[in-house]
Amino acid sequence: MAPKVRPAKRVEGQRKDVWSIINEAAAAADKEVINLGQGFFGYNPPSFILNAAKDALDRVDCNQYSPTAGRPRLREALSASYSPFFGRKINPATEIVVTSGANEGMLSAFMGFIEPGDEVILMEPYFDQYISNIEMAGGKIVYVSLHPPEKGDTQVCSADEWKLDLGELEAAFTEKTRMIVINSPHNPIGKIFSRDELKAIGDLCVKHNTIILSDEVYDRLYYKPFTRIATLSPEIEDLTITVGSAGKNFYCTGWRVGWLIGKEHLIKYAGAAHTRICFSSVSPLQEATAIGFELADTHNFWTLSKREMQRKMTLFNSIWHELSLPYTEPDGGYFVLVNLSSIRIPDDYEFPPHVLERPRDFKLAWFLIRELGVAAIPPTEFYTERNQREAENYLRFAVCKEDEVLEKAKERLRGLRMFMV
Amino acid sequence: MAPKVRPAKRVEGQRKDVWSIINEAAAAADKEVINLGQGFFGYNPPSFILNAAKDALDRVDCNQYSPTAGRPRLREALSASYSPFFGRKINPATEIVVTSGANEGMLSAFMGFIEPGDEVILMEPYFDQYISNIEMAGGKIVYVSLHPPEKGDTQVCSADEWKLDLGELEAAFTEKTRMIVINSPHNPIGKIFSRDELKAIGDLCVKHNTIILSDEVYDRLYYKPFTRIATLSPEIEDLTITVGSAGKNFYCTGWRVGWLIGKEHLIKYAGAAHTRICFSSVSPLQEATAIGFELADTHNFWTLSKREMQRKMTLFNSIWHELSLPYTEPDGGYFVLVNLSSIRIPDDYEFPPHVLERPRDFKLAWFLIRELGVAAIPPTEFYTERNQREAENYLRFAVCKEDEVLEKAKERLRGLRMFMV
Ligand SMILES: Cc1ncc(COP(=O)(O)O)c(C=O)c1O
Ligand SMILES: Cc1ncc(COP(=O)(O)O)c(C=O)c1O
Repeated sequence: MAPKVRPAKRVEGQRKDVWSIINEAAAAADKEVINLGQGFFGYNPPSFILNAAKDALDRVDCNQYSPTAGRPRLREALSASYSPFFGRKINPATEIVVTSGANEGMLSAFMGFIEPGDEVILMEPYFDQYISNIEMAGGKIVYVSLHPPEKGDTQVCSADEWKLDLGELEAAFTEKTRMIVINSPHNPIGKIFSRDELKAIGDLCVKHNTIILSDEVYDRLYYKPFTRIATLSPEIEDLTITVGSAGKNFYCTGWRVGWLIGKEHLIKYAGAAHTRICFSSVSPLQEATAIGFELADTHNFWTLSKREMQRKMTLFNSIWHELSLPYTEPDGGYFVLVNLSSIRIPDDYEFPPHVLERPRDFKLAWFLIRELGVAAIPPTEFYTERNQREAENYLRFAVCKEDEVLEKAKERLRGLRMFMV
Repeated sequence: MAPKVRPAKRVEGQRKDVWSIINEAAAAADKEVINLGQGFFGYNPPSFILNAAKDALDRVDCNQYSPTAGRPRLREALSASYSPFFGRKINPATEIVVTSGANEGMLSAFMGFIEPGDEVILMEPYFDQYISNIEMAGGKIVYVSLHPPEKGDTQVCSADEWKLDLGELEAAFTEKTRMIVINSPHNPIGKIFSRDELKAIGDLCVKHNTIILSDEVYDRLYYKPFTRIATLSPEIEDLTITVGSAGKNFYCTGWRVGWLIGKEHLIKYAGAAHTRICFSSVSPLQEATAIGFELADTHNFWTLSKREMQRKMTLFNSIWHELSLPYTEPDGGYFVLVNLSSIRIPDDYEFPPHVLERPRDFKLAWFLIRELGVAAIPPTEFYTERNQREAENYLRFAVCKEDEVLEKAKERLRGLRMFMV
């Protein structure tokens, strides 16, 4: 008989997560499923970065422990690339810490500043990993909504029409508020917060002495002007930690290289937490990322990569026009939210219990996998129960895939016609 | 003026750590210092693994997110390699989780099982990262000693003569004890716990229903028979999580690939914590590690690698015989503890304040860097204050370096003669 080992509360509740549900559904389907679910790339990083990684593997120092704050060459390269955006020289020694993906970077920021009982403000829909990261640090989450456009069920909308109510945000601050997370360009909406929105949020944070964790992992994929909140005032900058990801920048989500940028009084403690969590991050791929930043401009990489993603977005979204299904036109990133309120699932359609108990978008996702062989993500996973209904008619599709995969997906999605009311 | 952002308590106390002290001392020295301090390798992984890593970089799936529990191929390879040691088939789907180095693996284990206030038993000297990992989870550490051999100041001893007092260990268990950490082969002592010692420890853990975190990262470097505690009884196995590291196995500490092996009721929760900490680990280097395990036997790698390290150990330790300085002959791993009680530091020798306030071994380390240009690690960093005196005459040297580096270090260490009483 196994001993009575009880887990810690922080890992106890294990509701089946959306990735498992969708992946298992895809694996159980009788045809090969086209996966537009998880946000990994369907193609490789550019060869100048792959070659840099291969070269690094031949160097002894690139295969051994890196300094816990990150390899000096990468911190230099990040400083060179980001200083112009921030309008000041980012000190590579004290204002940057390299982490094991953006995810561990955010965990480090929470671990560096959140004590049990402290409050963190999140916007719904949120990137789901924030929740467990905040809970690991003992933080309590306070939610405010990004309200969907009212006409979202019937018309194509702009990502900008998903609105934060500043009154609601102000009401969310309490004595215990320590941090807020902002995500721009936003997953899953594709919203780029306007300068005015960011300034209003930032000023509230200054008023309440609240640290801003600005998740900007999609910072090179913007299709309208993109503002970084840290640049809006010195007082806001003093409170802002900006999060980046080599995985998103260079098409290599499996490399686990990310970073935090901010003033020394912030990075010092996030960096201390990072050292205690992972010690240091993967050396040869840090080196390759450094070289990626050094060479990106020579290859006109940032411009081409943005142009390419926007092209894919347009290519894929033509199917929604064809079907007259409304979606949210993203201003950044590689996700698109599509509104499927007009899709009718047959009344007697059978779902497994763990799908049946979830909102309509989980059923839509299941139905799409089984009937059409296309996987997408149900966004209510990114909501608390209270506000799930706002998104239960949407599905999130990732377009960071080969053109032929997108075309094949479109071909299959034409089958939706049969189920439209 | 910077805002009043206070850090979380868990990262507040930032005493200068040993690695920073030694690295800064080395950087400030006027000649190039030979670094036998930190345990990174001075040479590359074997080419069959480097080539596997380069090939993986050409494959799209190897550059994208891996499953959070690790790539199936690596879990299969680990199962194939470890099942014979454990005398049963390790289930790759449920009994293995791949982590971002052994370090994040251990953090995941603590996060999976330790609630604030729970107690964890550690042996002194300990690998220093355990402390912050346990504290992150809110655990309280209870220490027991590995007592140094009494004649250690005057004679070469065997690592086996560093002794755990079983009475002291039994006394350390309380109602709140949840976990114990065992490290064999041991860093820094080089001790391999005997079958009898492990059985006695394991039985105590069974009696107290205590989870055993068995840190076996040096598991391929043993110079006398090596026993894995999980294999000693089904009851002990039910409580044991075994920790491994590709960094240590394949000379690539910077790759950050590690793993935990254990029964499903343990791995399930450690794995849940891992997902919340790092999401997933580095994909191309997981793939390369898998191939490393698949090909190791063909290349007779495990035998050669052990033989090679033992040869380096003998090569290096001849200097201590030459100088008649006593050391602890390691039975495993790549560290050697040398006793320098007979070295006389001039009374008027000047130390910076952060060295002056530490025990004698920090002064010895500083002195060796400055006078001889050889860096080693002061082991009292791996002790609580209470027991520091036990190790204040020792320094830890790492021999996982090129032969010529070891020879050069020996040449410099001959200079110690001038300072011997
Ligand atoms: C908004 C957002 N933040 C952070 C991450 C995690 O990035 P990384 O893979 O670098 O950990 C993701 C990944 O999907 C994301 O969408
Ligand atoms: C005893 C021990 N455990 C764990 C580790 C960490 O291993 P990794 O580099 O895989 O995180 C080390 C590294 O020095 C060690 O000595």
